Formats: sequence, C-alpha cells, structure tokens
Amino acid sequence: MIAVDVMSGERPPDVIIKGAIRASQEFNVSIILVGDETVINSALKKLKYTGHKRVKVVHADEVIGMHEKPTIACKNKPNSSIMVSTRLVKDGKAHGLFSPGNTGATLVASLMNIGRIEGVYRPGLVTFVPTLKGSSLLIDAGANPDCKAEYLAQFAFMGEVFARKIQGKKNPSVGILSIGEEKSKGNELTLKTYDILKDLDFNFVGNIEGYDIFNGDVDIIVCDGFVGNIVVKVTERVFKLTFEFVWQEIGYHLFQRIGFALAYPAVKKLTSKIDPREYGGAPLLGLNGNVVIGHGASDDVAAYHGVRMANLIVKNKFNEVLIKRLDRFKLRKKVA
Amino acid sequence: MIAVDVMSGERPPDVIIKGAIRASQEFNVSIILVGDETVINSALKKLKYTGHKRVKVVHADEVIGMHEKPTIACKNKPNSSIMVSTRLVKDGKAHGLFSPGNTGATLVASLMNIGRIEGVYRPGLVTFVPTLKGSSLLIDAGANPDCKAEYLAQFAFMGEVFARKIQGKKNPSVGILSIGEEKSKGNELTLKTYDILKDLDFNFVGNIEGYDIFNGDVDIIVCDGFVGNIVVKVTERVFKLTFEFVWQEIGYHLFQRIGFALAYPAVKKLTSKIDPREYGGAPLLGLNGNVVIGHGASDDVAAYHGVRMANLIVKNKFNEVLIKRLDRFKLRKKVA
Repeated sequence: MIAVDVMSGERPPDVIIKGAIRASQEFNVSIILVGDETVINSALKKLKYTGHKRVKVVHADEVIGMHEKPTIACKNKPNSSIMVSTRLVKDGKAHGLFSPGNTGATLVASLMNIGRIEGVYRPGLVTFVPTLKGSSLLIDAGANPDCKAEYLAQFAFMGEVFARKIQGKKNPSVGILSIGEEKSKGNELTLKTYDILKDLDFNFVGNIEGYDIFNGDVDIIVCDGFVGNIVVKVTERVFKLTFEFVWQEIGYHLFQRIGFALAYPAVKKLTSKIDPREYGGAPLLGLNGNVVIGHGASDDVAAYHGVRMANLIVKNKFNEVLIKRLDRFKLRKKVA
Repeated sequence: MIAVDVMSGERPPDVIIKGAIRASQEFNVSIILVGDETVINSALKKLKYTGHKRVKVVHADEVIGMHEKPTIACKNKPNSSIMVSTRLVKDGKAHGLFSPGNTGATLVASLMNIGRIEGVYRPGLVTFVPTLKGSSLLIDAGANPDCKAEYLAQFAFMGEVFARKIQGKKNPSVGILSIGEEKSKGNELTLKTYDILKDLDFNFVGNIEGYDIFNGDVDIIVCDGFVGNIVVKVTERVFKLTFEFVWQEIGYHLFQRIGFALAYPAVKKLTSKIDPREYGGAPLLGLNGNVVIGHGASDDVAAYHGVRMANLIVKNKFNEVLIKRLDRFKLRKKVA
C-alpha cells in the first residue's frame, strides 16, 4: 500500500492521480490518494475509476506550498496532505509514500511522523546521475547540508543496498566524491569517511573526482547534502546551458541552423534521458517507512515512476536488508 | 618583471617559452624564464630571440612532476623550477609568476617562499566560469578544502577587487554558493559567512544556487575549495559530456549526422569559449606576490594569457588595493 500526496507540487492533483492510477494498475499495487476528497473524487470520476478496490481516498484539509518554510509549515498545518500521508505510514496503513512536494517539508514531516530506523543518524536523499553507461546513484542529494563521517558511511550502504536490491546491480561499487583520487586528497569529512570505509569488506573504490562522476564506473557516489545538491543543480543546468550556448554561437548562420534542426531529434532524446521525471523521484532512505520525493514539477509520468519506485522499495524489503548490512559492519549508532 | 616556470606542466618548455615571449612583446613586460638553461637557450635560438633585453634566463636544476606530492616534492627539490620561481618573487627580482604546473606544488612553494599578505588567512584560487553573459569568477577553486567563514569573507573581497581592478567591472556583485537563495539556507560555513558579509557596504547579493551560477547575474561566486573544485570539474565535464551524449543518441541516423556536421562550427566555437586556456590560468590571490597557475596541459596560448594575467595583476597593484579593502571592512586577521 503506497500513499500518494496528490496535493503538493506545482501541477494540479488530477495529473498526479492519473499517473498514480496507471502505476497502481500496471504493478498491481494498492494506493491511497491523500488530499481534498472532493477534488480527488471528481478526478476519479473523470478517469472512470471510482470505487476501485485498489484505490482508497484519505481526506486532507490543507496543502503545504512549494515555498513554505518546512518546519513552520509542518507545525502549522498538521492536516496537510504530506503530514497526513506520513501519518498513514507511521500507523502502518501505508508502507511507503510518494509526494511531489516541497522537499524540505517532506523531510521534516517524515522525520516527525515516520522517524529514522533505530541507529541511523540521518536519512539520505538519493538522486540519479546520467552517465555514459546508464546512471549512477548519488547520496546525499540535499537532505543534510552538514554531515559527519558516520552519516556518510551509512549513506554508502543505503546506496549500496538500493543498487543491489532495487536496481539489481551485482556488487555495486561505492566511491566518495572528493577533489582527487588519492587517498590523501579531500576535506576533513571525506578523509574520515575514507578511514571508516577502507577496511570494510565491500566494493569500495576510494575517492572519485567531479570530472569522473559521469563515466559510469562508480555505481554509488557518496557526499554530504550540501555538495550533493550543488552537483545535481550544476549538472542539470550545464546540460541545458550547452545547447543555449551552441544556439548563441549559431546566431544567424543559416547552415548551422539547418544542422541544429536536423540533429534536433538527438538533442530531444537526450533531454528526455536526463529528465528527472523518468527516474521516479528521489528516494529518502533510512526511515521507518519508505518515502519517495518527486520534483515539484512532477507530472503524471513522474507520479507513475514515483509510485513504481516506492512500491519497489517496499516490495524488496529495502529496510530489512539495510539494517542487516549496517549491523554486519557495525555501523549503526549505539543506543544507550 | 614576471617569472615564468617553463619546465612544469605536460608540454615541452619550448611551447611555454613561445607563449611567454609573445606576451612579453605584446605587453612590453620583462620576463624571467626559469628552468634548464641549455633547453631554454636552445629554444630561444630557435625563436631567434637570444640576448633580448626583456628576457632573462634563470637556471633551475629540477622539475616537480604533475603527480608528485606537493609538500614532499617542494622539500626534496629546492632547486626545482617552481621553487626557484617563487624565490625570485620572494627576493623582489620578479613581481609575479606564471607556472603551468602541479597546482598543489605551486601552492606549497608559494606559501613557503612568498607567504601570505599579513592578516590574510589563506590564499584563494580563482577560476572563471562561462556564463550566458560572459564569465563569472569563482573563488576558492580548490586551494583550501577546509575553510572557515573568515576565509570565505576574505575570498569575497579578493574576488571583488580582482573583478574591479583586473576585469574592469563596476560595482561587481558577490554571492555565496549555497543550496537555496534564502538567507536561512546553507551549511554552517555559508550561514556564518553570510552573517559576516551581510552588513558590509558592498554589492552583496546573498546566496546563489548551483543552478544559477551560469546566468551571469553574479560576478563573484564564493565557496570553499572543496565545493569549488568539484563545481569546476563537473562543469567542465558536463559541457563535453553533452556532446558525447548527443553523439550517442545520433548513432547511425544519417540526417542527424549531417546536421551535427553542419552545426559543428558552433560546437567548436563553444569549445574554445569554455577552454580554460583562454582564461589565462588561475590567479592565486592573497600572497605577497602575484601567482598565476596554468592548467597542466597549458600550451603557448595558455602561457601567453598566463603572463598577460600575471602582468595585469602586478600593474594594477592588486595587493595594495586588496589590503585597503580588507582594512576598510576590518577583515584582516589581527596579529598580536
């Protein structure tokens, strides 16, 4: 059972509902649509999908906007769709949730209501980076601007378990994002993280430089949320910028314009390849329930992939495997 | 008088010498070529440029390679071209230097021999980021992986003075690279830096996100050297990657191939626009003498621009202006 926060994000609920229902049908997964009952029911009517046994509706009075301050908004709007969705997970009525909303608010609501797995320092936000060989996984993509080495060591295994269980990669490789490949290169945080990871029996490849992320040789790239967020945004922007620059250079050159037009199908295919909607949102790992956060601009395609992703994480018992893996390497925080 | 370390880097000294001499001629600047005397003299003979009064030669026995460990190499090779070059600056025989070498070794040699301006915490390495409006300046691009807010506050003014005096920008804007525009967004380091800069009377625009670096609205982007290095490398890589991806997508589609070929002049022009050689290397600011570090792959064009840049910094009395600016805002470290 996956809860879907249909009210958050920049698109109308109808769009999110449409994508969620498609995923529900295709993957035989039950969903709970969370939001304004009237709006949801009328959307379901339009889709001729009322009364279906795999679709439940749970009412939520309020919505947290994309630009509201997370902590304040979650406190002031206990009946917002994201707060209700996270409570459904807390109460065991849903096993996972998808929200296309305010990343900060989803994080805060998840921490308030769902909470971390015992012994996990911080939840890690995953994002997928396009590479020449497919895609790699970067964790943390922005949930934790200030990190300690112990957090990063746990992120490494959140990523590793995700790559194995959800992406089906065998013996995925893990690297620390740093400013040089040598062991001695990095900042205090990455050097300490290196020290923790170097002796553990898994596929640790050491440091990876910014330049090499996109070769696709390292499956899981570990960094703090400040660096991760900046890398993700710079990458996203420079892809688009390259074409803007080329177009600037082309100017009024007729043949170059024709050339660009002829090559445009490839440009368009690339744009869809690097489209974050295709990746199913960003899983927030390490919580007592599985959360997937969509881009604010999520449409039906994004909602479809988001529900698919949340379902995969639940079905593959991600949390159970993660706990075993962290225990094996004695990486869980000791609770007194 | 600019010292030029002609031995470092990946290209033969002849190439560096050629570029340095061109700059010397064009800008009427005296240069000291530092390296193996025999090699330099034979290169000068080939260029028919022996005995010219604007060109001196200073012999250096050794070279530090691109992959040697900076601290060890500088200790073990006191007569390497970079150590000799920095000593020329220390002794007042040169006012600035250009080296296309090992960035770490240049940094270490500069700190050992030239030293920091009194009251400057750390030298800041500058790089130039291509934007839709030209280029912006990013500082620190990698000299200091771990920074304090006081360092970043000084970097802000190194960048600001550079933009005003060397790039001729009027009232250049300064932003802190962060993970959200709001004042409250960031990590501990950027939040503290914000607190220092917010009350000072200069063109401070607050935080700037990774996504917005390339719009060209902010002239100086301030960050720690760990983040800066990663941003620079990701940017450089993604520009090239975009074309590799497009080419991958094009595959055997004939018309798209023709299109790419027709548009290629624009691609090539863009490649040269984002070519780090054109920027004249990376100035290392805050030292008691002006240092410009070239890319390891620097050729004659890069050496030409490197000498041009070092000369501009010297001629415009960068250090004097920087000291005044730091004093005005009471940002120099107090010395007991």
